[in-house]
Amino acid sequence: MKAIRLHAYGEDPVLDDVPDPTIAGPLDVIVEIGGSGLCRTDLHIIEGQWADKSNVALPYTLGHENAGWVRQVGAGVTNVSVGDTVILHPTPTCGLCRACRAGDDMHCSGSTFPGINTDGGMAQYLLTSARACVPLDPSTQPADVAALADAGLTAYHAVRKAIPLLYPGTVCVVVGAGGLGHIGIQCLAALTSTRIVVVDRNPEALALAAELGADDTVVADGSHVDQIIELTGGMGAEVVIDFVAEQGAELEGPRMLRRAGSYFVIGYGGAVSIPTIDIISTEINVVGNLVGTYNDLAELMVLTEAGKVSLHTKTYPLTSALQAFDDLDAGNVRGRAIIVP
Amino acid sequence: MKAIRLHAYGEDPVLDDVPDPTIAGPLDVIVEIGGSGLCRTDLHIIEGQWADKSNVALPYTLGHENAGWVRQVGAGVTNVSVGDTVILHPTPTCGLCRACRAGDDMHCSGSTFPGINTDGGMAQYLLTSARACVPLDPSTQPADVAALADAGLTAYHAVRKAIPLLYPGTVCVVVGAGGLGHIGIQCLAALTSTRIVVVDRNPEALALAAELGADDTVVADGSHVDQIIELTGGMGAEVVIDFVAEQGAELEGPRMLRRAGSYFVIGYGGAVSIPTIDIISTEINVVGNLVGTYNDLAELMVLTEAGKVSLHTKTYPLTSALQAFDDLDAGNVRGRAIIVP
Amino acid sequence: MKAIRLHAYGEDPVLDDVPDPTIAGPLDVIVEIGGSGLCRTDLHIIEGQWADKSNVALPYTLGHENAGWVRQVGAGVTNVSVGDTVILHPTPTCGLCRACRAGDDMHCSGSTFPGINTDGGMAQYLLTSARACVPLDPSTQPADVAALADAGLTAYHAVRKAIPLLYPGTVCVVVGAGGLGHIGIQCLAALTSTRIVVVDRNPEALALAAELGADDTVVADGSHVDQIIELTGGMGAEVVIDFVAEQGAELEGPRMLRRAGSYFVIGYGGAVSIPTIDIISTEINVVGNLVGTYNDLAELMVLTEAGKVSLHTKTYPLTSALQAFDDLDAGNVRGRAIIVP
Amino acid sequence: MKAIRLHAYGEDPVLDDVPDPTIAGPLDVIVEIGGSGLCRTDLHIIEGQWADKSNVALPYTLGHENAGWVRQVGAGVTNVSVGDTVILHPTPTCGLCRACRAGDDMHCSGSTFPGINTDGGMAQYLLTSARACVPLDPSTQPADVAALADAGLTAYHAVRKAIPLLYPGTVCVVVGAGGLGHIGIQCLAALTSTRIVVVDRNPEALALAAELGADDTVVADGSHVDQIIELTGGMGAEVVIDFVAEQGAELEGPRMLRRAGSYFVIGYGGAVSIPTIDIISTEINVVGNLVGTYNDLAELMVLTEAGKVSLHTKTYPLTSALQAFDDLDAGNVRGRAIIVP
Repeated sequence: MKAIRLHAYGEDPVLDDVPDPTIAGPLDVIVEIGGSGLCRTDLHIIEGQWADKSNVALPYTLGHENAGWVRQVGAGVTNVSVGDTVILHPTPTCGLCRACRAGDDMHCSGSTFPGINTDGGMAQYLLTSARACVPLDPSTQPADVAALADAGLTAYHAVRKAIPLLYPGTVCVVVGAGGLGHIGIQCLAALTSTRIVVVDRNPEALALAAELGADDTVVADGSHVDQIIELTGGMGAEVVIDFVAEQGAELEGPRMLRRAGSYFVIGYGGAVSIPTIDIISTEINVVGNLVGTYNDLAELMVLTEAGKVSLHTKTYPLTSALQAFDDLDAGNVRGRAIIVP
Repeated sequence: MKAIRLHAYGEDPVLDDVPDPTIAGPLDVIVEIGGSGLCRTDLHIIEGQWADKSNVALPYTLGHENAGWVRQVGAGVTNVSVGDTVILHPTPTCGLCRACRAGDDMHCSGSTFPGINTDGGMAQYLLTSARACVPLDPSTQPADVAALADAGLTAYHAVRKAIPLLYPGTVCVVVGAGGLGHIGIQCLAALTSTRIVVVDRNPEALALAAELGADDTVVADGSHVDQIIELTGGMGAEVVIDFVAEQGAELEGPRMLRRAGSYFVIGYGGAVSIPTIDIISTEINVVGNLVGTYNDLAELMVLTEAGKVSLHTKTYPLTSALQAFDDLDAGNVRGRAIIVP
Repeated sequence: MKAIRLHAYGEDPVLDDVPDPTIAGPLDVIVEIGGSGLCRTDLHIIEGQWADKSNVALPYTLGHENAGWVRQVGAGVTNVSVGDTVILHPTPTCGLCRACRAGDDMHCSGSTFPGINTDGGMAQYLLTSARACVPLDPSTQPADVAALADAGLTAYHAVRKAIPLLYPGTVCVVVGAGGLGHIGIQCLAALTSTRIVVVDRNPEALALAAELGADDTVVADGSHVDQIIELTGGMGAEVVIDFVAEQGAELEGPRMLRRAGSYFVIGYGGAVSIPTIDIISTEINVVGNLVGTYNDLAELMVLTEAGKVSLHTKTYPLTSALQAFDDLDAGNVRGRAIIVP
Repeated sequence: MKAIRLHAYGEDPVLDDVPDPTIAGPLDVIVEIGGSGLCRTDLHIIEGQWADKSNVALPYTLGHENAGWVRQVGAGVTNVSVGDTVILHPTPTCGLCRACRAGDDMHCSGSTFPGINTDGGMAQYLLTSARACVPLDPSTQPADVAALADAGLTAYHAVRKAIPLLYPGTVCVVVGAGGLGHIGIQCLAALTSTRIVVVDRNPEALALAAELGADDTVVADGSHVDQIIELTGGMGAEVVIDFVAEQGAELEGPRMLRRAGSYFVIGYGGAVSIPTIDIISTEINVVGNLVGTYNDLAELMVLTEAGKVSLHTKTYPLTSALQAFDDLDAGNVRGRAIIVP
């Protein structure tokens, strides 16, 4: 089959001919890829930023946001059948550790991460596990939803954790209305009646945010923390969900909080730094967020199939994948680039 | 009546004759003080560290951890009667704001803090509110429990919030086995079956911790983070409750956490500083803690009256209060100094 | 002032001239009534069904769903001022018992219930408490929202408790699309993305339900339990909210549940009867619901002011109140009858 | 190998020679049985009461509470190794359905129940799944803990669900201090500081309850509901855990509740019957309970290995198993009968 593989860090990936994957274990599933999302992490992988963390042996196939159709299943697979349309949880899990037994897939002690530390989905076929397969309505187009497998899941997971804090009358500040943020806004609008206030540097992103459900938008022009405080009557927000969390955002976010408020960290790059006196005198919380559970992904797909969450996508055939990498790097992709084999 | 009042920052407080307090509002309560706890915060107040925050007009009466007997009540008081033994929640609240209506007394938008920003309990009588009065069994000696009003309440509140995280098989690290910490250990032992691991520089404090319910003790000698990791099979602890949170403890605490773990901040002085990549890749939380609710204090008194939480105390008559301040400053008080009028 | 008072059970209430109420206690508030909802409970009161429970001394003023404008306040009132538009929580609470201190207003051990066991709001003025006053935007018309004070609050409270169970992909069955039910449907649509399935005998009520957010409607024609089971793929619903709970509905509701499902009881009249073997083998729950908290009412008003919850109302001047009682009794009121002084 | 098999309903089981089980699937595990608990359910099975529900083909091997040592593992097993001491969750689950992915093992749509609907553990070896194996400390004797696999798990699961309701100052009534109840009492004592009040007909059972942590005991002599109300100052209990739930207990339990209280049903045989007016006017709950999760069992074993939960047992060799059935039927077993191959 054809696959986009990375042969050396710092070099362009290559469209290779490789053997088709084969079923080895009882829970193995082979999926014909219908769409594989391309994101900034892929650029970072190529640059070598993940080399030490993933320890993956080169060459290997990229693509960590995948959806398609089941083509073969192992002997122990009971949840999907050949022909099913599926989206794939990004980290096939062991199913046997305490975290798995509690449904906390992201803390599985034995998971893999296709596209990061093993062969991914920028190929005609992907070897995955029954535990990663979320069945979809047959009418769903994999290319339309593939990017929800990781980016969407991460946004949904954070919003779902915040729901109990977001009763009517509260304010939720969303920092960053980009790839993850604009999904987060849609999830907030679908699952709560909180007042959604979106902060971004980019007025176009804010215009989209308003269409997707933001009640207020604030340009991140340096005065935005003050504007948030003013918008909330001097009190601050019950929840700040930070999809940026670098370049200073991670210092501003906690300053937007109300007493007893919670700062949800999703983006990364900076460092949270808060005097303990400020943490205790206002009793605020900092909440980490990491991908999401299998059931989170299944729930997100319910929202998607009901039309409550949608993505802007631009598709590229597998043979033009390098063009997609270039476009993304050059900032020429509106929405998400999806590789379609 | 007699009262210990601060006349000028940087000078010793003075034993003054002042008028008895009188009932003005419908929820006012006058309590004859049976015991008023003395703590390090009182020394900081005298030094002037709180001057800007409290804005209290000098002279005023110290004492923010108070218990005694009800002597007069306003027309609207229905929860206590003259003669009742009571411990006093540290911050009489308005009862009408959203926080009060949710039971979150520590976030009341209109509370006072006797002994901090208005006259406190190092006196024969204290003017407080029905909303601060927690009735006690008549056999309870106010001097035995007064220090639980603030220090004990703070420890209990944090432990109570942590209970859902501390199922059997988990590890809870307690950093600091001093005034608050040794109450926290007793609360953990009473309310959970978690494995309690206590870290402190002082071997005597650790010996006491072991008597009070610690399963393991670790001397804070520089290798303690490594020891915690080793004790937990390389995984870290589900919860770290940090009663110190200064002088480096606030940086070590998060490093002791397991994936999805929570770092509870109670002490103060330092600054929490964690790269956002570390927050998200392990999905950890930082949880602020501030005093506690009225119901928290009532619950703590149930534990106390059942003998599950107790304090070491050393009593001083009101006329020897200055000696108590000196002893505390010199490190000559084992347990808590209690002023008894 | 004018007031609609009941002089004897079984007789029509009378439009009386009575003295204006006066402020006696520090938290007293006098509200000029802008609207007082009339409901079936008022008819039951007149019939004498509540005589033994309320023990109210006749004559007294009816009206337990009230909204209006603050006209006088007691010395201790800090949350509202003269001129404020307010809706009134139905049970002014003591503020000092454990339930009040936890925010559970409906379990206050010392509350009153104006219109039920003391003078209510079918009058020009009502004596209430600061603890009952929820401030509204000045542009809100009291007559538009008064009926939310009790009926709306009860529906909101139950829905809010059910939110954690109603993640995307779940089914929530609403039994009864009448006064409370049609508010419950709007709350479900505003606060969740569950699939809302409404059951009612009345096709018109179902048509309204569909407009308000129901995803499916089922006529209660005897086959409705089977239809629910079929609609849910044979599994049953995660949640059933029963606004009827009499005349057999209380036996059908639990049969519509999925394993681990919850049956929320709001209506009354029948008796829940379930073999314990069925309770344990499917691990289902029966959840009682009673009015709601002060904060629940404040949150519901946020939804209302945002246009997410609305009521059909028909207003009557105080002088035509008897006509309203007759119309209600005869089934000639579409939506809610509101008495406007 | 030797196995105790049921050949016909209404007849004694037989000690048969049968082939050893063999590994077929990748998650299969063969356990050498160290102890298999015998309980009243086994007598009911023999009588044929479960015939229609289990649809098991006779003859088959009894024994649904099992512990032992791992002797063989399938190719996909990663959580246990040959030689490990294990206790077995009673229902090996599919691991792939929504319930499994949320950790709710008891609601798995594809589980089996060895000893009930397939061959159980009254034999030298048992074929089970990796998903059922909870590893134990090698020093643990399987015969000492086997009965915790089902009876103990059920009691623990209910207590764990009740913890958030059982803060200090609350009352928890335990109805029935027999096999499950006496484990429930130990769990309550280990995990809460609630006041534990135990009701039983048998004074000896109450004496044991007091040793195990009951604060008060009440003989079920007809006046016990009144006694509970009196013991709670006329208020009732926050939680009632009913391990009987038949012969009238299921009607008395809800009457012991405080406003907003919860009645946990574990036993079965009767029918809960409560007028809806009583459910809503006090806002009480009825909570079903069914076995427990895999993680529940792992947590219970932590309590057991820490000495906080223990069982009285009487062991019988496999060759004397029929004697154990007779002794149980005749009421001659104090504690639990354990078959040891």
